[in-house]
This record gives sequence, structure tokens and C-alpha cells, in this order.
Amino acid sequence: MGIVLKGGKVITAVDSYYSDVRIEGEKIVSIGSNIEKPEDEIIVIDGCYIIPGGIDTHTHFDLDVGSTVTADNFESGTKAAIIGGTTTILDYATQVKGQTLKEALKGQHAKSQGVCFCDYGFHMGITEWNDDIAEEMKDMINEGVTSFKLYMAYKNNLQVDDGVIFNALRRSREVGGLIGFHCENGDIIEVLVKEAKLAGNKTPYYHAETRPDKVEREAIARVLNLAEVADASVFIVHLSSKEGLGSILEAKKRGVQVYVETCPQYLLLNDSLYGEKSSSNFEGAKYVMSPPLRKNYDNHALWNGIKQGEIITIGTDHCSFNYKKQKEIGIADFSKIPNGAPGVEHRMALMYTYGVLRGNITINEMVALTSTNAAKLFGIFPEKGTIAIGSDADIVVWDPNYSTHITADKQTQKVDYTPYEGFKQNGRALYVFLRGNKVISKGKLAESKPLGKYLYRKAFMGRS
Amino acid sequence: MGIVLKGGKVITAVDSYYSDVRIEGEKIVSIGSNIEKPEDEIIVIDGCYIIPGGIDTHTHFDLDVGSTVTADNFESGTKAAIIGGTTTILDYATQVKGQTLKEALKGQHAKSQGVCFCDYGFHMGITEWNDDIAEEMKDMINEGVTSFKLYMAYKNNLQVDDGVIFNALRRSREVGGLIGFHCENGDIIEVLVKEAKLAGNKTPYYHAETRPDKVEREAIARVLNLAEVADASVFIVHLSSKEGLGSILEAKKRGVQVYVETCPQYLLLNDSLYGEKSSSNFEGAKYVMSPPLRKNYDNHALWNGIKQGEIITIGTDHCSFNYKKQKEIGIADFSKIPNGAPGVEHRMALMYTYGVLRGNITINEMVALTSTNAAKLFGIFPEKGTIAIGSDADIVVWDPNYSTHITADKQTQKVDYTPYEGFKQNGRALYVFLRGNKVISKGKLAESKPLGKYLYRKAFMGRS
Amino acid sequence: MGIVLKGGKVITAVDSYYSDVRIEGEKIVSIGSNIEKPEDEIIVIDGCYIIPGGIDTHTHFDLDVGSTVTADNFESGTKAAIIGGTTTILDYATQVKGQTLKEALKGQHAKSQGVCFCDYGFHMGITEWNDDIAEEMKDMINEGVTSFKLYMAYKNNLQVDDGVIFNALRRSREVGGLIGFHCENGDIIEVLVKEAKLAGNKTPYYHAETRPDKVEREAIARVLNLAEVADASVFIVHLSSKEGLGSILEAKKRGVQVYVETCPQYLLLNDSLYGEKSSSNFEGAKYVMSPPLRKNYDNHALWNGIKQGEIITIGTDHCSFNYKKQKEIGIADFSKIPNGAPGVEHRMALMYTYGVLRGNITINEMVALTSTNAAKLFGIFPEKGTIAIGSDADIVVWDPNYSTHITADKQTQKVDYTPYEGFKQNGRALYVFLRGNKVISKGKLAESKPLGKYLYRKAFMGRS
Amino acid sequence: MGIVLKGGKVITAVDSYYSDVRIEGEKIVSIGSNIEKPEDEIIVIDGCYIIPGGIDTHTHFDLDVGSTVTADNFESGTKAAIIGGTTTILDYATQVKGQTLKEALKGQHAKSQGVCFCDYGFHMGITEWNDDIAEEMKDMINEGVTSFKLYMAYKNNLQVDDGVIFNALRRSREVGGLIGFHCENGDIIEVLVKEAKLAGNKTPYYHAETRPDKVEREAIARVLNLAEVADASVFIVHLSSKEGLGSILEAKKRGVQVYVETCPQYLLLNDSLYGEKSSSNFEGAKYVMSPPLRKNYDNHALWNGIKQGEIITIGTDHCSFNYKKQKEIGIADFSKIPNGAPGVEHRMALMYTYGVLRGNITINEMVALTSTNAAKLFGIFPEKGTIAIGSDADIVVWDPNYSTHITADKQTQKVDYTPYEGFKQNGRALYVFLRGNKVISKGKLAESKPLGKYLYRKAFMGRS
Repeated sequence: MGIVLKGGKVITAVDSYYSDVRIEGEKIVSIGSNIEKPEDEIIVIDGCYIIPGGIDTHTHFDLDVGSTVTADNFESGTKAAIIGGTTTILDYATQVKGQTLKEALKGQHAKSQGVCFCDYGFHMGITEWNDDIAEEMKDMINEGVTSFKLYMAYKNNLQVDDGVIFNALRRSREVGGLIGFHCENGDIIEVLVKEAKLAGNKTPYYHAETRPDKVEREAIARVLNLAEVADASVFIVHLSSKEGLGSILEAKKRGVQVYVETCPQYLLLNDSLYGEKSSSNFEGAKYVMSPPLRKNYDNHALWNGIKQGEIITIGTDHCSFNYKKQKEIGIADFSKIPNGAPGVEHRMALMYTYGVLRGNITINEMVALTSTNAAKLFGIFPEKGTIAIGSDADIVVWDPNYSTHITADKQTQKVDYTPYEGFKQNGRALYVFLRGNKVISKGKLAESKPLGKYLYRKAFMGRS
Repeated sequence: MGIVLKGGKVITAVDSYYSDVRIEGEKIVSIGSNIEKPEDEIIVIDGCYIIPGGIDTHTHFDLDVGSTVTADNFESGTKAAIIGGTTTILDYATQVKGQTLKEALKGQHAKSQGVCFCDYGFHMGITEWNDDIAEEMKDMINEGVTSFKLYMAYKNNLQVDDGVIFNALRRSREVGGLIGFHCENGDIIEVLVKEAKLAGNKTPYYHAETRPDKVEREAIARVLNLAEVADASVFIVHLSSKEGLGSILEAKKRGVQVYVETCPQYLLLNDSLYGEKSSSNFEGAKYVMSPPLRKNYDNHALWNGIKQGEIITIGTDHCSFNYKKQKEIGIADFSKIPNGAPGVEHRMALMYTYGVLRGNITINEMVALTSTNAAKLFGIFPEKGTIAIGSDADIVVWDPNYSTHITADKQTQKVDYTPYEGFKQNGRALYVFLRGNKVISKGKLAESKPLGKYLYRKAFMGRS
Repeated sequence: MGIVLKGGKVITAVDSYYSDVRIEGEKIVSIGSNIEKPEDEIIVIDGCYIIPGGIDTHTHFDLDVGSTVTADNFESGTKAAIIGGTTTILDYATQVKGQTLKEALKGQHAKSQGVCFCDYGFHMGITEWNDDIAEEMKDMINEGVTSFKLYMAYKNNLQVDDGVIFNALRRSREVGGLIGFHCENGDIIEVLVKEAKLAGNKTPYYHAETRPDKVEREAIARVLNLAEVADASVFIVHLSSKEGLGSILEAKKRGVQVYVETCPQYLLLNDSLYGEKSSSNFEGAKYVMSPPLRKNYDNHALWNGIKQGEIITIGTDHCSFNYKKQKEIGIADFSKIPNGAPGVEHRMALMYTYGVLRGNITINEMVALTSTNAAKLFGIFPEKGTIAIGSDADIVVWDPNYSTHITADKQTQKVDYTPYEGFKQNGRALYVFLRGNKVISKGKLAESKPLGKYLYRKAFMGRS
Repeated sequence: MGIVLKGGKVITAVDSYYSDVRIEGEKIVSIGSNIEKPEDEIIVIDGCYIIPGGIDTHTHFDLDVGSTVTADNFESGTKAAIIGGTTTILDYATQVKGQTLKEALKGQHAKSQGVCFCDYGFHMGITEWNDDIAEEMKDMINEGVTSFKLYMAYKNNLQVDDGVIFNALRRSREVGGLIGFHCENGDIIEVLVKEAKLAGNKTPYYHAETRPDKVEREAIARVLNLAEVADASVFIVHLSSKEGLGSILEAKKRGVQVYVETCPQYLLLNDSLYGEKSSSNFEGAKYVMSPPLRKNYDNHALWNGIKQGEIITIGTDHCSFNYKKQKEIGIADFSKIPNGAPGVEHRMALMYTYGVLRGNITINEMVALTSTNAAKLFGIFPEKGTIAIGSDADIVVWDPNYSTHITADKQTQKVDYTPYEGFKQNGRALYVFLRGNKVISKGKLAESKPLGKYLYRKAFMGRS
């Protein structure tokens, strides 16, 4: 007994065609017309798109940042994901200094196991280096963790030095891993933040002021220089600026292999949201994330980078804190504001509304950016990331005719605001299938059990 | 009654999966298992790939270059194409000065109509500019000619000045056309050639010497500067050098939208083939083409440009002249040697053998480079360029287990040599379907009628 | 009998020191204290600077532009020069098509001989190419014309194609010449101007609109690419934009040898002076010159280019037309406005007031920019360009304590406006000596005879 | 009573003219003819050049590197300097961690006071950062130490992190200091060295192998990025590579103010001198310095950088260790070889022989590079760096007709080899005057007392 989607238009990263699609068990088994069998459930989806379930390459659920813990845990976060059309998330396990990678992974499994509504995997954040860590990188690959992350910011905390970066890059080639980098020069930021605070400059405005785009450019230039010496590929997470994109193209000119992610917030929002220097209004705190929001010309440059094929995945860096009580920790000092904002729920809708409908991307490019490229880069293709025979039936039936406005009070993610409050939304996930399970039906949660499973990802083979 | 390919692995620009594919009439109608109907012809292709028919974006068949006419005409050229797994070629109609574009198109139709063994379309070469030509660009779109070509080389012949380039680029935006550019600075070349000849330097060696890579870089830099002012997209044909690729990345950094083609010869051959300065051996003439072959580091840089996604289509610039009698026209003077070399027949095999099997590209990337990207860029997708429901059944069953060596005496193209003589070849087109017609069977021509038809291509919408 | 300047501070491109300077005949003969001889004339100049007479590398006196002739001829122009502290000007002889270079030079001699108040030389403008011209370049060197000029703008008039540029660059190496380039892509400009006029856009505003900075960048990129192939040095005249400067630095990175001139107007004025699109006010015509005035950020970038040592000479491109009757020729059509503006008289004062006193340059750098570098580059050093034993006594006694405002009614140049009307001026040429002749005394003309002589310049040796 | 140099040709960074020069006491008092007074000593120097005493911007005398102390101390080093025509050296005082800058300075004074044969000053090496150091930077300016140095290499020793760099750059602007940077990424080097040693690769060959040019490029790119954010000027010491120069030009394009030094060894020697990978010959140790020698194309690029005006001073990084006993410390392990080589004695002769006589630079440029630019940049102009009235009589009478070969057995510097063994030398310092004292006469030491004095240098004003 299977399920047949009838009357929709199949969209992959390449193709667009009208066809029925038949699901059996967890898999897509046939594509064409007249493919249904007698007992099949038939779902008529005239006028809808059949797209691969979204993959959010960048979430932080149930993250303890010291002063508080993110508003969303794996349960609420993955529920929001599937509501929004995302069937896979890649979260971060991060080594606390002194911890082994295995311990970090174990901790992350403990938080996520049995509570996820979508499939999930982990990148492993590395915060120090020694021979054991080098050895454990190989173990992680065997555990299905085939991507890593290093931070060039957050001094005295997550930040690693160039020696660690260089060692890890060389090791990544040997073990088949791909390393993502948070590219901001943490040393400069530390100086600027300290200085701002000494001068009494403590409003959210100064969050952006103390992390200028040039510190992103510097960090990107550096890591790509190191990658060139190490002869390793690099993944740049949450690219936010035109200056940063320029650095990437300079390195490409020298032949460096680099893959780039940006986030909806860097495409759609800008730094005017932080308010005035001496604003008594604390609303700007909602947008305190790192890197910070930039200028309109940065938004424009990033859209263009997408068009040129330089930016290939869209993550959200979902890391939600309630405005009340959580963001307010920093009411007297921007540097105390928990960094991050929600996003996992609205990613697909934002890319459809502001990407596809505004003519910035085609709907095939939307699929590539929100799903396929990530699946290939992170070792879960062809199970995830496409509509093809034998692939997991992670399918979103996208209804382009639906329209609404994004508001916090309608959202599933468990946080008291959204940075996109009041934004027009076109389209929505009418049905969502997770490995053949209908988890969303008519836009509502249709499956109360958390069916998400951990993804043992394949090693990185040097190419998307 | 249809045809079912059974047991193969479907390869698109994105997907790879085992599945049967069913053809009915000219179209692909279903993909999956158990899709055959009673009267269907079943072709078992265990172990083979099912890939979209190749699209060669750059051929010159039946071209009169003044001193002679190409060895291959549309009949022999397209026959060689399908033998090699290419089901669509895009040839060039070129306006002779004084001629209207319509006349040029008519002439090209006269040469090709009824004799082609694969489907075909035309780019329109423009050699002068006035208000009528501007008007005719629109007419061409309506005639299905939605791409154009301008030459920055061949002074006093095909070469146009910057005013023509700029006018044409602006006009291309209005009418929905995409212009391809032959990027070499013809003025410099003219000076260098004249000088070489005055100095008595007339061997094939001097063909490369008088067209250095820097003249390609200059022309690319210039056309992309002009495109930036005109706010138009550009297609660079037959990129040959690292310097040229560098120019492209510099322009991308400024946001210019540019698409790039290279050819197998620029990936696989180098300028040592021209022989010595004072060689009495005229073999170098076989490689006299423009741009000329470059250095090993250029080959490497172009493969890397492919990996980085900067180069997106592979054409051949097939323009064949027999070594005997034709190339020999220039035996005493390299500048008289008819420019060009054959290639249409071996493109797919070369990209498979030296691209896929050597690890330079994945097989999906091979499909993208040899077919899908071209189909999208040149307005024939999704009819061509993919394996999907509703698409034309332009299908190549690629047998990866076949192996041979390339030699002129086995080739179908009607020319007395191949630049790839003795090259190892892995894989071949076991079956080829052109709009559902089995034109190649077991590697041999299976259909003696020339079934190729002219393609009315769609306008360029600003994106691949 | 000599002249001794007592109590001043000697300023060269390198040195600043208090010392007396003694002139005998046309030369500087000693520097130090107690150097006067009994019969010497002693001029006490306490508090003043002793600087080398200025060299304006770029003037157009007595130039017939077809519709009219410049307001200043050699007499009025050179009188204005010495009043302003400039003792040498380099004007342009320009070949009319069909004319030999010798004829062009002869014509320029006819206009200038016996009427110049300062010394003078000529650059030779070349507008077409053939073997005779190549031969004549050598003759020009022998006639003391060791620099040339090619125009990349003014289509169908002065503009030459890339073949001429390339030939001339190669020839320049052989004969010891240096070629200056007017870098704007004339083909693009022609298209934009035609289009603007068709659209009825005819106010001065559109002069700038139709010559965007990117056409300067393109032309600079091109000529430096050509120079790299030709292995020749290049002089860029009147650099006006940040984009253009960027092109220069990209070429320097590849090793190209390039020297750059800018003008006070590109440092101090911006395109807001052209007025509004539909302004009924024609004042903008005063600033109609090519390249046009740019943005504030261009001013800033050019000052920075000076600080970095990338821009090494300051010319004026003095080419004056009266606002009344002359500029008004274009009152109904900006493209008819005679291009150019006055400047020779105020160059030194502007560089002192806005360069030295504002901290953009040191006074030594002012000397280098306004005199020494030009003398070296154009083959008149050490006769001109410095204060040293044996050099021509071309000396300006600069009184830094003087202050005034620039106004047209006080000026010597024979034109009815100045682009710097109302600008504060600090300092002035209190005394000016031309080869030992006191031609300016207490700021007034002290010598009614035109003592200027033609300079037979030395060949360019590849270095400033 | 004075001294008059008669019959020579005065050469400054700008001027070249025949003239007598008169010295009285410590100063140059007149320039011209007939300037001698009755009791003056007359020295006839027909055919010689009168050039400013050389300034070596980069020496390390009496430096304890842990395993040993440099072969040359201030006495032998400065004696070699004046023999070679260098009358000022700038050595490095370097803070040992935990030490105050004042203590470091005091230590350096103790080593140098009363023993120097030429004048001298100190740059201050900073190795850690805190508020006291920031305060002391101001104190250093008051002590005449107006330049500083930070190391990006030598991890766990001299190397500082980006926070220190950024803080110091910002502070340098406030106090009027200029910071020089040793640009190599020490983190990468540490990894590569450790790895090489683990692999048993311990010959001198691996010194270069483990410090590739790309680590210089990275460090330069980084420090110039930081300088841009800090809005501070930067001095790059001992630039060694084409890649590094490229980084500099990219930063200049963004407007960064940067001054660059190179050394004769990077212009004249290359890495073939390190010998083979498994050489039993230890001669390569003589060239073990950091950065290491590079390729021929790097030599060429650096000469070109000089011609373009991008590189403005020539230091030697003189840091001598005897081959016997000292270099041999590392005979079994290249990483133990004391880093450095001698050079102070031959700098002027090398720049004359291989710069001026080979046509790479003019003799004025030689003066600028070896003396004037350094004097201006480091606050000792016009006392040092020129031949002008009122300047210190630090004069070298350069005899261009002398010729010899450089050999260790003839040298004054107290070390058992020279990297330039057997090099042809043209010209020598026939006479050298240090503040009017004839310290070298006929090429020999003429003054047995160490007359050198410490130079209180002026603050950096943001410009050379």
C-alpha cells in the first residue's frame, strides 16, 4: 500500500514537470502517470509543487549559552521545522574544552534522541586541538558526523587559533570531513566591545558597530589562505557581507575550493533594525546575532552571489531566545544579550516569497539552495535532497496559492517573537512527508509522535 | 506502444538512481519500476547509464572560410554527433557584412534542412550594427534564434568594435537574447601576426605565439566591463586560459553575470603540439585553432574552474579541415592555415574518460556540463537536457564498460585526422534516442534517415 | 653680477632647509650662507619658501575645437602660468588626420613661438597609424618631443583603435618616448550620448551621466593590458575616479609600469556642480570637461592615491572657453558645449591651500607633484624641477602668509569665469624667476617681454 | 675650519649635480663653487659621488637568541656599517615577556652605549599587551623610540595575537608611532615544522619548505586588514615574496597606507642555496633566515616592486652567526639553526652593483632606498638622509671606479662567512663622514674611537 500524489508539479534542483509521484514505505518508487495501485491512498494536489523536504544546515536547539538556554529545544524546533517544510536539520554538537568529541556527541544525542519531529544530524564544533582530537575526527566520521565547525570569533571561549584551524583543515582531508567556519575576527571584536563598553556605549546599536563587515572579510581571507596552504575545502557559514563575498572571490581566483552558506536574515533584514545609538528602545535586541545584520547593499550583494552560484546553501542559524527575560539579560549591556534569533520555521516560505516570487531565484534554485546542495555537501544525498526513484520520501507539497503574514502569535517555534513580524508570506507546506510518513496535512501537524531519526552521514568527497 | 529501458541507472545533472524509463512517442512518460505495458519494446541495459542526450553548444558545419569549406557538413557532422552521444548541436549562422540577419538565417537553414541526424539550432553571428540589425535581433528571437555571437578577433572581417558590443548587449536585454563572445583582442593579434610574418616566422608554432593568453584576458576584461555598464549578461565561448578565468572572477566580484564555455581541447591538449619554432614538420597545423592551445597550467586552471562552478558548458568549436589539402593551404604561412579542428564526435567520451573517471567531475556534473546547463541557457529546457517526465526522449544509454582508443580511421566525422589520435576512450553511446527514435543501436547508426529538426528556442530569461 | 635670495627656506621634492640661494645668469650657482658677491642683487624673502618653478603637464592653449577656439592662447595662458608660479607648461600638438607629425609640430610652433611668458614643450597627439608615423615618432624625439598622446575617446575624431595603441606602445619603447592616454571608452560614450539626446536629455547634467566612471575604468584596464603585452610604460592623464585608480592597482599587481596624473578639479570639485537633470540653469556648463567631475568619494580616493604614491603629477588640462558665447554654444545640447575649463593660473595655490595646509600632502610632496616628477618623467630634469646647483633658476618665492579668494575678476587667464570662484587661497608666488629672469615681482608681472623658450626634451628612459 | 669636498657629484634622492660641499663642525654648511675658506681641509674627489650616509633600518646586533648570541655586537656591527657606507643603523630592542618597555630599552642602551662607530636608534619590539604597555608606548616616543615591531611568527615566543596587533595599531596612531611587522603566520609554520621533524626531514632544505611564501601572503593580508579597521599605517619589514607584494597591492586598492622594506638577500639570492632535501652538505644553513630565500621570480617581482615605488626602504636584517659552532647548533635539526645572516657591511655596494649598474634603479633611487626614505619614515630627517644645508654631515664619498669581489676574509663584520661570497662588487665608500668626522678614509677606518651616538627620533607623522 502506497501513497500517490496526483496532479502536482515535481520540482528538483534541475527539473520541473507535471507528474504523479508514488511513495511506498519510506521511499519514492515511481514517477509518471497511471502509477497508482489499487489500495493506494490518493492525494490530489492540483496546482501544488512537489519539492524535496527542506534541509536547514544550521540550527542551535537546546543550546546552553551560560546565562540561559535557547527557547527552542529539539522538540519545539523540529516541530517548527516540519510545519515550515523542512524535514532535516543539521544542528551543532560542540566540544566543551576538556571534553572529548565523543562526549560532546553523546550529550547532543541525549538532548535529541526520541524527541525530534524531523530527521537530524550534527556538525561537530571543535574548540581545542591535540592528537586525541585529531584521532576522534576519524571516529566522528564513523559516527555519521562528517562535518565540523571552527569558530574564529568568541575569544576565550569557542575561538581557536590559526594553528588549530590549519591542523584541522589538513586532518579533514584525511578523514573525509568538511569544516564550516564562523568567520569573524574575534580578537578585533573583543577590543572594540571592551572599548565601546568603557565609553558607556551599551545599546543594541553597538552590537553591529563592534563587529564591522571588515572583521568578516578578514576572517574569510585568512581561513581561505590557510585552506590554500592546507589544500583543503572550506565551508563558510552564515556569510553576511559584500566584503566577505569579495574575499571569497579573490580566493576562488587562486583556485581555492569553498562552499558558502547564507541565511534569510542576511538577505532580507538590515542594521537599521538595531535602532539609534542612544535608543531607550530595546527592540534592537531581537536582531542581536553574530554576524550582525548589515546594509542594504550587503543584502543585494548576497542575492547576487546566489545568482552567480557563489552561495549554495541557505541555513537559518536558528538560535532562539525570548525577548522577554532572555534578550533582556542584556538590557543594560549589549554584550550580555544572548546572541541569536529564530528562523527554522519560515526559511522555506521566505525563500519562496522573497526569492522565487521576486525573481531573485528560480524555483529550481530554491530547491537547490534549501535542500539539494546541502544534501550533497553533507553526505545525505540521494536519500535526502531530491525527488527521485529510491530516495527517501521526504516530500513537501507546496501550495503556492496560500498567503498570509508572518507573526509570532501564529508560529510553532517556541519563542515570543520573530524577526520577520508582519512580513508577507506566499505559499506554505500543505503536506509534508517524512520518509513516507504524512507528518503535516493541510498545513497542520498530522503526526503527534516524533518520528525524526538521527542521520549517519557519508564522508565528504571533496565536491557538492 | 512504447520503449522501456530496463536495468540502467538514470543520471541527471542532480540525480543518480536505478530505475526503468519508459518512452512513448517522442517523450519520456514514466520512471520507476514495473512501468512497462504489454506491447512495449524492452531494452535491457544492465550496467549502463541513462543520460540526457548531449548538447554541443558550439559547432561550425559547412562553413566557408574563403579559402576552403569545412570538411564536415551538417550531414556528416550531425551523424558524428549522434554516434558520440550528442543529440543537439547549436551551430552558427553568421551575417556577412551587408546581409540582413534574416538572410543569414535563411542561408543556414538551406544548408541544414533535411540533412541533420540530430536536432539543431543556431546562434546568430552579428558583424555590423545599425537600427535594422537592432530590429532584426527581435525577429531572430521570434525565429527561435535566441542567442547571438560577436567576435572581438578577426580584424577587418568578423571583428566588431566596442560600440557594436555595447549596443548589442543593451539590445540583448530588451529582446531576451544572450550574446556569446569570442574573446581575443584582434587588433593586437593583427599587429603580432604581421610582425611575425615580416620576420619570416611562419611555422605553426607562431600561431600560438601571436595570440598570447593576455589577449584573451584583455578581451574578457573588456567585454565584462561593457556588460557591467550595459547591465547585461554575457556568455564567454571557448575559454582557453587561466588569465582569462582570472578576468572573469574579477568581474564576478563586481557582480557581473557571466556564463562560461570551454572545450575539451583546452582541458586536454597543450601548445607543445605546435612543434618547434623552425620545425619542418607541419603536424602542428592540426591544432591551429583560435584561441590556440595553451599551457599545462591552463588545462589545470580550467578543470579547477569547472570544479568551482565557474565554467558551465562544454562545446567543441568543431570546425574541421582535412590535414591534407586544407590545412596545407597554410604550409608556407601559418596565418593561412584554416582555423579549427574536429571534436563533436568525441566530446562525451572525452568528458567521461578524462573528467569523470579521472575524478575531475562527477557523472552528474558531466551531464550538467555536456547537456543540462546548455539546455537551460539556450532555451530548450526541459525538452532537452534532462531525463524527466514530459521531456523529449533524447536519451543516451552510456555503456561504461566499453573501451577503445580514439583514432581517425574509426571516426564518423568526415575529416582525415583527430586531435585526440591514440587517446584512450572509456565508455560509449550504446543506444541513442532522438525524440524517441532509436538512432544508434549497439553503437552503430540504426536509422538512415536524417531525423533531426530545427529547434525554435525560447528567449533568454537572464539565468541558467 | 648675480641675484641672491636671502632668508627663505629651500624646498625640493625631498629637502627643506633654510639657506640663501644665488643665481648667476640662467642658473643656480650656490646654496649656503655668505654666498653673495659684491655686486649681487639681494632680495630678502624672510618667511618665504624657495620652490622649483611649477610644471603644468597638461594645457591646451590656442586650441581650435571646430566650433570655437579656446579663450586662452599661448600669450595669455603662459602669462597666467607665471603669475601662478608655473614656469613650464607642456601643451599638446595634435596631428590632424592626414597630417604628418612634423606638420602638426610646425603648426604648434607657429602658434607659440615668441609669445610665451614661460618655457614650454609639446606632447604630440597621434590620431592615426602607418609606417610613416612610426618613423616620425623617432623624428619627434629628435625635435625634443619625447612624449605622445593617444585618445581612447572622441570617436570618429581623435579616438584610435587598439591596434594603433598597441603599435604606438611598442614603438615608444624603441624610440624612447612615453605615451599619455586619455582613458575613456569613446564607443560607449557615443552610444550613451546619442541615446540621451534621443530621449531629449540635453542639460549639462547629462554630460556626466553619459560618461560614467566605469568607462574610465574600462579604458584604463584595457590600455594597461595592452601595455603589458607590449612591455611598455604608460602615462595616464587626468585620472578622475576611484574605479580608474582601482584598475591601475590591479595592473600594478601584475607588474605593469604606469605613471599617473590627476588635476585639481578631480580633487576638489564634484558632479553636484552640473545641476539638476532638468535645470534651466546653464551654470553646469562651466564644468563640462572630459572626464567629467565625479563624486566626493572619488575626490577622497584620488587624494589617497597621491598619499600612496600612485599619482605622481598634477596637470590642469587647462582648456578655457568663456561661459558667455562659447560654453553657450551648447545651451540647447550638452554635447555641443566646448569641453574644458581654465586652471593653469591657480594650480599651485590650490595644491598649497587644499593639499599642504589641509594635511593631504607635505610641501615636499607638493613640489614633487607640481614640478619635480614631471621634470623627470618628461625629460627636462635637472634643468627644471628642482633647486640645485647647475639647474635653471626657475624659482618661485612662495609667500605662505598671503591670503585671498579666487575670483574670475582678479585672474590673468583670459576667460570669463573660474571653476574655483570664491575658493579661499593661501599663499602666492611673490617672485618668480624664469631662467634667472625676474618675471614676477611682488606678485605682479615684472617683465613685459615673453621670455619663454621651447624645450628640447630628453628621451624617456623608462623611469621617473 | 671646515672640510670641503671638491670635484664630486652630489646625489640626493632627487638631485644629481656637480658641486663642492663644505662641512663645518657636524653640519653641511654650503654647496656650490668657490665655497672654501682659507683654513679648510680640501679633499679632492674627482669622479666620485657624494651621497647621504646609508641608513640600515634593520639590524640585530648583540642579540641573545637563547642557544647563542649573534656573532656581531654593536662594536663590530657598526664598524662594518661605516666601512660599507652606512652611518646610521636602527636596531631592535625587544621586550622580554614580563619586562617593561623601559627595561628593554635600558638593556639595549647598556649594550650599545659608547661602543658604536655609527649613529643608531632603536625600534621597540612588543611581545605582550596590557594597559601599562599602552602607556609606555607614549614614553618610548619621548625616549626617541618612535617605531615598534610586532612579530606574527615565532609562536610561544615573540608572536602576538591579532588582539595585540589591533590594540597596538590603534595606539600607534595616538602616540605618533609606526609599527613594523614580521609577516609570517607562525601558527602554520609551527605545524609544518613539527610535521617535517616527525617525518625525519631535518636538513636546511626544510627550513624554506616549512615557511612557504603563502604564509607571508596570509600574514600581510591579515595585518593590512587589521590596519584598515584600525585606520593606522603599517610598515612591512623584509618583504620576501611576490605573493606578499600582491597582498600589499590588494590592500592599497582599498586605501590602506603601507610602507615596505625588503633586503638585498631577497633581491639577489634564491632558495636553491638551501641544497637538496637529503643533502649531507650543511652549507644551506648559512642562508637560514626568516623569511627564507624564495624563487627567482620573487627576486624579479621585488625589483619590480621597487621600480613601481611600492618598496621604499632597504634594510639588511643583519643577524650574524658563525657557520662554525653557531649555525652548526642545528646540524641535526634545521629548526635549531640560529636564524639570520650578515649583511650590514655590503648593503650599499650590493644596491649599487646590482641595482644601479644593472639598470634596476637610478642612483637617486638608490639614495632614496638606502637612506632618505628611511630617514623620513623614522623621524631623523633632515638631520640624516640627505645632502642639504643644515643637515648632519653624514656623507659617503662613493668611488664608482673601485671594483672587487665580496669575500668573508676581507670583511669587517665579525662572522666567518658572507652569503655573498664571490659576488662582484663595484664601487665603495672611499670616505665616510659621521657628523663631520672623517671616520673612513681611502676605504679604511680612520677613527679608532666609536663616535656613534644614540638618535632621539621624532614621532611618525603619518607620511614618508
